[in-house]
Amino acid sequence: MTSEWSSSEKKIARRVFDAALQCELAEVLLHFKAMAANATEPGHMWSTEEYLSKARREIDSKYDYRYSQLHVVFGRLLREGRISEVELAGLSEENLQLIRRIASP
Amino acid sequence: MTSEWSSSEKKIARRVFDAALQCELAEVLLHFKAMAANATEPGHMWSTEEYLSKARREIDSKYDYRYSQLHVVFGRLLREGRISEVELAGLSEENLQLIRRIASP
Repeated sequence: MTSEWSSSEKKIARRVFDAALQCELAEVLLHFKAMAANATEPGHMWSTEEYLSKARREIDSKYDYRYSQLHVVFGRLLREGRISEVELAGLSEENLQLIRRIASP
Repeated sequence: MTSEWSSSEKKIARRVFDAALQCELAEVLLHFKAMAANATEPGHMWSTEEYLSKARREIDSKYDYRYSQLHVVFGRLLREGRISEVELAGLSEENLQLIRRIASP
């Protein structure tokens, strides 16, 4: 993980990172709203609270924008299908290889 | 708080306690559903999570069905207007006095 990020790569990384984060947040928001709309008894709201609490913890730990962590972050997002290699076009071959290695099962 | 609860008083207490708890939970459920229905961005769902977490803590600490705590519980519910003295009819004068004392500002 000693690969460097050029300034043009940092711009790409930031854009891909933000888009994936916004997309995942939007998914959680939709799911949360559906859970709440279907809630008819107190137990359902405590389930929703747990769902949100878990989602927040996962998102916080997953979206870590430190250059030392970005390969892991993008590797995981690639494996999960949340981003595609096309979006990473413009990154150095070295960075892409590191990301692919993490992405592969 | 050394007052005793007769078995008929325990039945009254249980009924009043459960009704107040269900009513408060129903209020929280309504508020939660309204917050979720109006949520349009991620920040709104984290506010809802905090609201639920706080409500759960408050309800857990407020509704403590131990006979040693019931005067405090009913005193507080009376002060908050969540129950009325009419509902407590049938409790001994001693228990009622303890509850009223706690309820008074």
